[in-house]
Amino acid sequence: MDAESKLVARIARAFPEKDKGRRDGRLRLGIGDDAAIIAPGGKTDWVLSSDAFLEGVHFLAKSHPPDSVGYKSLVRAASDLAAMGATPRFFLLTLAIPASRTGPWLDGFLRGMSRAARSMNMALLGGDTTKGDAVSISITVLGEIARGRTVTRSGARPGDLIYVSGKLGPAQLGLEILLRSSFRGKILADRSIKDGGAELRRLLRPHLYPTIKLKLGAWLAKHRVASAMMDISDGLSTDLARLCAASRVGAQIRSESIPRVALPGTLASRFKSLKPDPLKMALHSGDDYELLFTVPPRNIKKLIKAPGFSQLTAIGEVTRGKSITLISREGSKKPLKSQGWDPFRS
Amino acid sequence: MDAESKLVARIARAFPEKDKGRRDGRLRLGIGDDAAIIAPGGKTDWVLSSDAFLEGVHFLAKSHPPDSVGYKSLVRAASDLAAMGATPRFFLLTLAIPASRTGPWLDGFLRGMSRAARSMNMALLGGDTTKGDAVSISITVLGEIARGRTVTRSGARPGDLIYVSGKLGPAQLGLEILLRSSFRGKILADRSIKDGGAELRRLLRPHLYPTIKLKLGAWLAKHRVASAMMDISDGLSTDLARLCAASRVGAQIRSESIPRVALPGTLASRFKSLKPDPLKMALHSGDDYELLFTVPPRNIKKLIKAPGFSQLTAIGEVTRGKSITLISREGSKKPLKSQGWDPFRS
Repeated sequence: MDAESKLVARIARAFPEKDKGRRDGRLRLGIGDDAAIIAPGGKTDWVLSSDAFLEGVHFLAKSHPPDSVGYKSLVRAASDLAAMGATPRFFLLTLAIPASRTGPWLDGFLRGMSRAARSMNMALLGGDTTKGDAVSISITVLGEIARGRTVTRSGARPGDLIYVSGKLGPAQLGLEILLRSSFRGKILADRSIKDGGAELRRLLRPHLYPTIKLKLGAWLAKHRVASAMMDISDGLSTDLARLCAASRVGAQIRSESIPRVALPGTLASRFKSLKPDPLKMALHSGDDYELLFTVPPRNIKKLIKAPGFSQLTAIGEVTRGKSITLISREGSKKPLKSQGWDPFRS
Repeated sequence: MDAESKLVARIARAFPEKDKGRRDGRLRLGIGDDAAIIAPGGKTDWVLSSDAFLEGVHFLAKSHPPDSVGYKSLVRAASDLAAMGATPRFFLLTLAIPASRTGPWLDGFLRGMSRAARSMNMALLGGDTTKGDAVSISITVLGEIARGRTVTRSGARPGDLIYVSGKLGPAQLGLEILLRSSFRGKILADRSIKDGGAELRRLLRPHLYPTIKLKLGAWLAKHRVASAMMDISDGLSTDLARLCAASRVGAQIRSESIPRVALPGTLASRFKSLKPDPLKMALHSGDDYELLFTVPPRNIKKLIKAPGFSQLTAIGEVTRGKSITLISREGSKKPLKSQGWDPFRS
């Protein structure tokens, strides 16, 4: 178990009241998964999750445009709803902000967040604002789903196939480019940058303005195709271990199957210090918000109707035991260690 | 309108989607009141609110014991539910914390928060943890109430009487004592401090371990006695102005009626630099979490059955117009300016 998971488990242990909630039927799923579920009495379940987004930890004031901060902080929070199969409805925003940033910076931030909210059809319910030495954002999201249809991390069974949506690594590649770029975030707004500008914008986008897989998540849940699901926010090696731990299973994945990205040759000379290792990025870098899910063999044929089916990749299968194994192109096996994002790693 | 209210209004304006939620009937009350209300389809409304509690802003690492930080951060968040008349059920915790504080400090924090959760019968739903340079807490609380029974800030009408529960100022007095005390927070745990220790503990408690008025709030809502209500978290002068602005009314309050506290004479020699002005503290200091509510004249006689009725004080009445007036003991009137806690005051 990684240090963050331990911390979460420790917090959960400090609050045994959650069992009480579960008994009386309101709390369908508490702390420890991507999101919690309450059943307030109607025909649907309501899914809730909170997500922090902090300056100096998740973004840098000098590198990240404020509208990206607003956009991304909401989208990544909602990704936990996608990971349960829920449809986002509402959110609450807690914002600590230095007085000096309440001007144009805040305008940009709200613009980005508003755009994200519109694109996901989410309404702001409320929240809290206060001053802080740096910008600190916490977002609580609420989603809705037909009763009992959520897909948790804990349903994977030996023999299930393991899938990921999209490619893994583009967010990290975008970050590396952003940090090496003299234009920093401005490149996205500044259309006057001609020399490779369009290509740079395309490469920066997954890091600054990620898209999440709401339709896919909802489809997999609605049609009961996935046995377990989560979003990859901290890196495949870390998140696959979490899914396996929750399901009490192991996994075997094939390195050659993992969908990855490389720096386009046309930009190699501009970013000479950037020598990305596509496999390493795909295994260990976070922030892509792709879905990681398992599918029982009997459901594989249904998958063809999934939204974005052509972007789905089977990367391995669920096994008995606890080990997570990476099989190389040559067929050699080695344990896959959790090397994704972990703020509490010592 | 104080700077924080403007900021909230600005955020609300950036998210016109909330009107959509309101139209389809799910969003009963959005941003701008103490809490938001959703109607997920059952027989009750669910009330949600978020609250930030930051080191260096709301508490000091050197002065405040970690269990107070845990206790108070949850209790003050739940106070927004009391202010709507709702019964707390669940909460989500976002916690940013330096690695160095994940040991005994976190244990103490969780102990305090767990105690608060137990005392209010609240279950932790989930949340997020991450590292941070300082401790930064954001809590989202969910409460339940019979459909349509919430009491908002906007129902006060001219002629209604204005009430407060309990006394105003003890939290500020506790803070002043804490900051001047060589024992700091330890005094509460350290029973070996004999010399006036019990009295000091009693005076520190309202600041470190506030109690909130859940029963009173729920009673006022259930019996439809209050026309408007909120909790006093930022100080009477600021919060009364907010209630009046939301209700589009004015107010007249009598300074001699405002329930206040003084430093006990037995402690005056120990805290010579502390010369608290009881009226000033009662008018402008926050953190007491007492309820401020208005009662139409026809409901006054019902009030006698309210929980803690003997602690309720009528401090004035709602008027037409927009001015908030303070009437002195001698009968002179002057405008009451908002001088409570406002993090964004320039």
